[in-house]
Amino acid sequence: MTAEADPPPFFRAHVFVCCNRRPDGHRRGSCAARGSERLRDYMKARAKELGLEGVRVNMAGCLDRCEFGPTVVVYPEGVWYRAETTEDIDEILSAHLRESGRARRLMLTERDVAPPKA
Amino acid sequence: MTAEADPPPFFRAHVFVCCNRRPDGHRRGSCAARGSERLRDYMKARAKELGLEGVRVNMAGCLDRCEFGPTVVVYPEGVWYRAETTEDIDEILSAHLRESGRARRLMLTERDVAPPKA
Repeated sequence: MTAEADPPPFFRAHVFVCCNRRPDGHRRGSCAARGSERLRDYMKARAKELGLEGVRVNMAGCLDRCEFGPTVVVYPEGVWYRAETTEDIDEILSAHLRESGRARRLMLTERDVAPPKA
Repeated sequence: MTAEADPPPFFRAHVFVCCNRRPDGHRRGSCAARGSERLRDYMKARAKELGLEGVRVNMAGCLDRCEFGPTVVVYPEGVWYRAETTEDIDEILSAHLRESGRARRLMLTERDVAPPKA
């Protein structure tokens, strides 16, 4: 079976917010330790209030870009963001999920990779 | 900023396994109640054993296709699967993540939507 025969997208935009929590003091830290659970809750609620059709916001396990967290990834685009505040979340909702553009200031790039293991 | 300027994909395939758990007896059931946590652990371990480069397997919150679970979605393709057994997981790993095809037998389609609320 080829990609041409895939069913249509189930969600227009599927957003995953890393909610992994590591113990305090871990070398890499974690998104939950940086407050991601509250940001996930806020993003879900605001997406609903804004009436964004076809947008789903989910928590996820460790997305492996811990150093840049709290991290958010939007599929199918595969665009990654760092969101530290509810204002950052608002910017992603507005620029990316409502306007189908990018919240450029917050985007992770290919340079945002974990440092080598100690 | 336009999509043309997006950074390259961080993962070749980003797999989310729904691990949402509802109380026993809930009308919609839940993926965790159908055994998804064990399947997620299996899939992570097997993907590593198979040496699948660029493949990330994560747990996720409720993907809202509970009736068809345990559900798995692969991005950026946005292809959804129902996986009930470790054999189903092996089939997805082999057909989709190794061979870049589809595990057709297990795919959800646009007809697999939740029934209207009672």
